Amino acid sequence: MKKLNNIAVLTSGGDAPGMNAAVRAVVRTGIYHQLNVFGVMYGYRGILKNEIFPMESKSVANIIQRGGTILKTARCKEFYEYEGRKKAYENLKKHNIDGLIVIGGDGSFNGAQKFSQEFDIPCIGLPGTIDKDIAGTDSTIGFDTAVNTAIEAIDKIRDTADAHDRLFVIEVMGRDAGYIALHSGIATGAEHIMVPERKTELNDIIEELQANERRKKLVNLIVVAEGDETGGANEVARRIKESCPQLDTRVCILGHIQRGGSPSCTDRILASRMGYAAVDALLEGIHNVMIGIVNDKIHYTPLDKAVKAKQEIDPEWFKIVKILAS
Amino acid sequence: MKKLNNIAVLTSGGDAPGMNAAVRAVVRTGIYHQLNVFGVMYGYRGILKNEIFPMESKSVANIIQRGGTILKTARCKEFYEYEGRKKAYENLKKHNIDGLIVIGGDGSFNGAQKFSQEFDIPCIGLPGTIDKDIAGTDSTIGFDTAVNTAIEAIDKIRDTADAHDRLFVIEVMGRDAGYIALHSGIATGAEHIMVPERKTELNDIIEELQANERRKKLVNLIVVAEGDETGGANEVARRIKESCPQLDTRVCILGHIQRGGSPSCTDRILASRMGYAAVDALLEGIHNVMIGIVNDKIHYTPLDKAVKAKQEIDPEWFKIVKILAS
Amino acid sequence: MKKLNNIAVLTSGGDAPGMNAAVRAVVRTGIYHQLNVFGVMYGYRGILKNEIFPMESKSVANIIQRGGTILKTARCKEFYEYEGRKKAYENLKKHNIDGLIVIGGDGSFNGAQKFSQEFDIPCIGLPGTIDKDIAGTDSTIGFDTAVNTAIEAIDKIRDTADAHDRLFVIEVMGRDAGYIALHSGIATGAEHIMVPERKTELNDIIEELQANERRKKLVNLIVVAEGDETGGANEVARRIKESCPQLDTRVCILGHIQRGGSPSCTDRILASRMGYAAVDALLEGIHNVMIGIVNDKIHYTPLDKAVKAKQEIDPEWFKIVKILAS
Amino acid sequence: MKKLNNIAVLTSGGDAPGMNAAVRAVVRTGIYHQLNVFGVMYGYRGILKNEIFPMESKSVANIIQRGGTILKTARCKEFYEYEGRKKAYENLKKHNIDGLIVIGGDGSFNGAQKFSQEFDIPCIGLPGTIDKDIAGTDSTIGFDTAVNTAIEAIDKIRDTADAHDRLFVIEVMGRDAGYIALHSGIATGAEHIMVPERKTELNDIIEELQANERRKKLVNLIVVAEGDETGGANEVARRIKESCPQLDTRVCILGHIQRGGSPSCTDRILASRMGYAAVDALLEGIHNVMIGIVNDKIHYTPLDKAVKAKQEIDPEWFKIVKILAS
Repeated sequence: MKKLNNIAVLTSGGDAPGMNAAVRAVVRTGIYHQLNVFGVMYGYRGILKNEIFPMESKSVANIIQRGGTILKTARCKEFYEYEGRKKAYENLKKHNIDGLIVIGGDGSFNGAQKFSQEFDIPCIGLPGTIDKDIAGTDSTIGFDTAVNTAIEAIDKIRDTADAHDRLFVIEVMGRDAGYIALHSGIATGAEHIMVPERKTELNDIIEELQANERRKKLVNLIVVAEGDETGGANEVARRIKESCPQLDTRVCILGHIQRGGSPSCTDRILASRMGYAAVDALLEGIHNVMIGIVNDKIHYTPLDKAVKAKQEIDPEWFKIVKILAS
Repeated sequence: MKKLNNIAVLTSGGDAPGMNAAVRAVVRTGIYHQLNVFGVMYGYRGILKNEIFPMESKSVANIIQRGGTILKTARCKEFYEYEGRKKAYENLKKHNIDGLIVIGGDGSFNGAQKFSQEFDIPCIGLPGTIDKDIAGTDSTIGFDTAVNTAIEAIDKIRDTADAHDRLFVIEVMGRDAGYIALHSGIATGAEHIMVPERKTELNDIIEELQANERRKKLVNLIVVAEGDETGGANEVARRIKESCPQLDTRVCILGHIQRGGSPSCTDRILASRMGYAAVDALLEGIHNVMIGIVNDKIHYTPLDKAVKAKQEIDPEWFKIVKILAS
Repeated sequence: MKKLNNIAVLTSGGDAPGMNAAVRAVVRTGIYHQLNVFGVMYGYRGILKNEIFPMESKSVANIIQRGGTILKTARCKEFYEYEGRKKAYENLKKHNIDGLIVIGGDGSFNGAQKFSQEFDIPCIGLPGTIDKDIAGTDSTIGFDTAVNTAIEAIDKIRDTADAHDRLFVIEVMGRDAGYIALHSGIATGAEHIMVPERKTELNDIIEELQANERRKKLVNLIVVAEGDETGGANEVARRIKESCPQLDTRVCILGHIQRGGSPSCTDRILASRMGYAAVDALLEGIHNVMIGIVNDKIHYTPLDKAVKAKQEIDPEWFKIVKILAS
Repeated sequence: MKKLNNIAVLTSGGDAPGMNAAVRAVVRTGIYHQLNVFGVMYGYRGILKNEIFPMESKSVANIIQRGGTILKTARCKEFYEYEGRKKAYENLKKHNIDGLIVIGGDGSFNGAQKFSQEFDIPCIGLPGTIDKDIAGTDSTIGFDTAVNTAIEAIDKIRDTADAHDRLFVIEVMGRDAGYIALHSGIATGAEHIMVPERKTELNDIIEELQANERRKKLVNLIVVAEGDETGGANEVARRIKESCPQLDTRVCILGHIQRGGSPSCTDRILASRMGYAAVDALLEGIHNVMIGIVNDKIHYTPLDKAVKAKQEIDPEWFKIVKILAS
C-alpha cells in the first residue's frame, strides 16, 4: 500500500448544515495521523482554478457549530468533461495530493467516481445533503438540521393558522425526495403530506377538507415536498381554493432557510464521525467509497452505487399521519 | 363616574405574538380590581355571535409565552355596518359589559371608535400588529418578535448565500410599512433595503451589484418589504436577473412564519404593561383611547387618531445601511 | 383474546420533552381503533387518587410541540407497596380499564411490571427519559431534545469562553449515564468529556491543560455528567483551580433547562411512533413489554428487562473526542 | 480641529452579545470616512502588549450575528496605573492613533477617562454590558439578548416545573443591577422577583408560598438577581426549604449562557447605531463621552458620568408582577 502523505478536502453541490463539522473532522484527523491536509475552495471548480491551500488545526477552530461551508461550494461543468478532470489531476499533483475527500451529494460522487477511475487519486465521499436521499446511509449530513428548521417554521405557522382558522399549504425542500416533508409533517401534526415517492389524490384531500369543514375543523396544514408531482404548494393551493372557496387558504414556501443555520447535535456528530472515518478509510487503503452510517455502524458503499435512492416510503407512515392528525 | 363591573377583551385583525400576554394582563388586572372579565372569541364576530364567556385567572395560566391568540381572531364585515354594531351592543349588554378592550390594528380601532360613539360602552385599544405602523406608540405588540424571527431566518439564508456566492432577494412582511424590512435588513447586514416609505431606484441597485461583481463581491442580500412599490421580491429578482444574468439570484419570501412564535421579552413586557394600563384607564374613566408607550411612558391616543402612521423613515438610516454593508 | 375496550395512559418519573407527543399518539390511535382512552394525572399517584378522566381527540390538539406533560407526573411511593397497587387496580376497574400505557423510565416500568403480574391489566411501557439509558431501545423520548438544548447552551458558553480565554467546566444531566455529556461534548468540540461509564484521570486532564497553556491554548471546555465519579463540575473545577491557579476557570451547571422545551423533530417522531405502536401492541395481545426502536424497527422488551442499561460506551468515541478537539 | 487619521477600537470588561456588531460599525464607518482603523486584541492589555493590527472592511464581514467578540477582552490591572497608561500611549502613538473607541462597561470608561485626561488621545465609550446599569443610555449592548436568553431558559424550566408541581428558584446575572431579573421575571410570569435595588422580605414570600400551597398553587417561579442582598438562589432555596419542607423546591443558576449567543435584532441595531455614532463623534471633535441612546436619540455623556447607575426601579413594576402572576 502506497503511503499516504497529502490529502485534500472539498465541499460540493448544495450546501448543508454540518459540512463544516465534517471538514473539521477531516482536517484534525488528518493532522493527527501526520498528514498534510489541503482545503479546496468552491468544490471541483477550486481544483481546476488551483484554489488549494494548506490547512492547520486552527483553520477549523470554532466552526463545528456554523452553518454553510467555510470551503464554499459551486457547480462545475468542466469537471464533467475528461479535459476538466485531467486538469484537476494536474493541479492536485502540484500539491502531491494522494487522497481526496468530497463532501456532497450524488452528483458530486459521480464526478469523484469518474475521476478516481481515470487517475490514481483515491476518493472518499461523505453524504452532505439535506435531502437524505442517498443509498448506503441511514442519514445524510444536514437532514436532521433541515427538518428541525422546518418544524420550527411550521410551528410558527400553526400559531397563526390557529388564530385565524386557516388552511396552510406549506412547501418544504425535496426535489426528488419526500423525507423532509414526511418528517416535518409528522412532527408538526400536519393533516396531509404530499411527497414525490407517492401519488397523492388531491381530490381525496379536497373531499376531506370539505368534510372537516362540516365538522368545524378549519385549521389544517398540508406539507408538500417541492418535487411532488402535483406541482408544489402554489398549485395545490390553487386547486383547493377552486374547490373550497370558503376556506381561508394560504401558501408558505419555506425555501432556503432549510439549508442554513447551526447544525443539530445529530448532524454535528454524524459529520464528525464520517469525517473521521473518511481519513481512516484512506489510511487503510479503502478507496472510492462513500462513508455511510447504517444501524449506527460505519458502512462503505462504492461511489458508483452511492446514488439517489429511489426508496419507497413505508406506506404505514401515511396511515400513522392520517390517524394521528385526526 | 359610573362604576365599572364587567369588562370584555378580544383580539382582532391579523394576529401578533404577544397578544396572549396582553389578554393575560387584562384578565388578571381586571380580576385584581374585582371586575368580571369576559373573553370574546374571534374578534368582533364573536360579539355578534355571542361567543362571550367569563374568564378566570387560570384561564390565562401558562399563555404568556405562546404565539397566536387563545381568543382567536377574524375579520368581521358586519361590524362595519351600524346594524352589526347595534347587535354587538345588545349582546354585550346581555352580559352587562360596561367596558371593552380591543387588541388589534388600526382597522379594529376604527370599528371600536364608531361603536363607542354610538353606544355607551367605552373602548380601549391596544396596538397589536407586527407592522409597528400605528401612530401614538413607539412600538406595537408583535413587532420585536417578528423582526427577530426575520433575522433568524435571514441569518440562515446568509449561510447558504455565502456558501454559494449568491444574491438573495428576501421579502418580509409590511404591506404599508417598511419597519420590519428596515430593522431586519440593518440587523443582518443587508446590502439593500427596499421599503414602501421611500422610492428605491432599482437601476441604482443593479449598477451597484454590477460594480460589486467586478470587485468579486458576489454575496448580497436585498431585503424588500412586501408593500414596496417595485412589487415585491419576485419582481425585484426578475429585473435583476434580466440585467445581471451572470449573478446567481434567488428569492425567499419569509411569509407567515413572521406572525407566529413565542413572543420576545420586549413584546411580553410591552403587552403586559399595555394590558395592565388598559384596565387602569377604564377604571379611571379614560375612554376611547389607544394605549401606547412613548419614551417609555404610557401614552393615550384618541382612537380616531390611532391610525396607520405614514411616517417618513429617517433618511440617515439608509446612509447607515449603505456604509455598514460596504 | 379478550376484547380491548378501555385503555389509560399516564406519564411517570422525570418529565421529558416528547411525552406530550406520545400521549397524543396513544389517544388518537386508541380512538381510531374505537377504544375509550382515559388520561391519568400525576402518574401512578393519579390512579390511587382516582384522577382518571376520559380523553377525546381534541384533548391532545396542539400539544405535539409542547415540552413537559399535560398529564403531569409525580413520584408515588404507595405504588411500590402491594396495598397501593391493589387500590390502583380497583380504581382502574371502576373505569373498566383493561390496558395501561406508562410513559416513563425504568423505575416506572418496574412498578408496571409488578402491577401487571399481580392483576389482570396488561401494561405497555414507553421509554420517556432524557438520559437514554434504557435497555431495549436505541433512543428514548427526550434525549435528542435534551442534547440539542445542551449544545445550544454550550455554544453560548463557548462565545464567552473565547472572548475571555477561559476554561469552562460544564455539568450536564445524567446521574447514571453519560450519553448527554458524550453527545453534547462531541457536538460542541469539548476538549474533555467525563462520564460515569468510564473512569477519568483528572490528573491527566490537568496535565493536558498545563501543556495547552504552554502553547497558548487557553480556551477549553470540559463537559461533565452530573453522575461522574469525580463529583460533578464544582469538584472538577475546584481541583483544576488548585493545580492551575493561573487559568481562568468557571463552572456552569446547565440544570433543569435540559428537561424542558419544545421537542426536536426526532423526539416528536419517536414519541408518535412509539405511542402508535403501544396501542397496536395492546390490540394484538402483546403485554407487559416496553416499546423500543432498534435499527429503525419496533422492538419489544419484557418490562422486567427494560432496566437501566449499564452499557459501556465504545472507547473509540473518547479517541475521536481527543483527536477532533486537538 | 486636528484632522483625524487613525483610530483604534477595542472591547473591554465582560463580553456582551452585540460587541461584534459594534466593532463592525466602527470599522466600516471609519473606512467610509477614509480613516485607518486598527483593532486592539484583549482590551487595554492589548495596547500594552502592542497587539494592535490594521482592520479592513472584510475583517468584520459576517460577524454582525456572532456572539462574543472577535477582538477578545480581558481585565488589565496595569492600565489602572499611570505607568501602564503611559506605555499604552506610546504604543498607540507608534501607530499614529489619534482616537480610541472603547466598547465596555463603567470600569472600562473609568480607565478611558483617566487616559484621555493624561494624554492627547480622545476616547469614545460604547456601553457594552448585559446588565443595562450604565447612566446616560436607555439600554446597553447585550441586555436585550441576555434577557431573551434568560426567558428561553426559564420557559423551559417552567415546562418541567409544571409537569412536577415544583417551585424553582432561578438565579440570573446582575451583580449590582436587577434589570435582567426584572425583565425576565415579568416576561415569564414569575411569582416573585428579587433584585439588589429593593429589599425583599423573604418571610413575606414564604408566607405567600404557604398560602399558595393551601389553595393548591404549587408551581411557582422565583427569579433572583445574583447580586440580591439575600445571597442568591441557593440561599433563597435553603431558607424556603427550611420553612416549607413539603414544597418540592429546586434551584437553577442560569450562569454564563446569558453572556453568549447571537445578538437580538435590538442589540444588533443598537450596536450598529452606536458604533456609527462613535466615529461620527470623533470626526466632529466630540471627545471623552459615552455614546448612549435616550428616547431613541443619540445622547452624549461625559465619560466620568457614565458610571453604574444606581437607579431605583419604579415600584409600580413590582405591583404589576404581583397582579399579573396572581
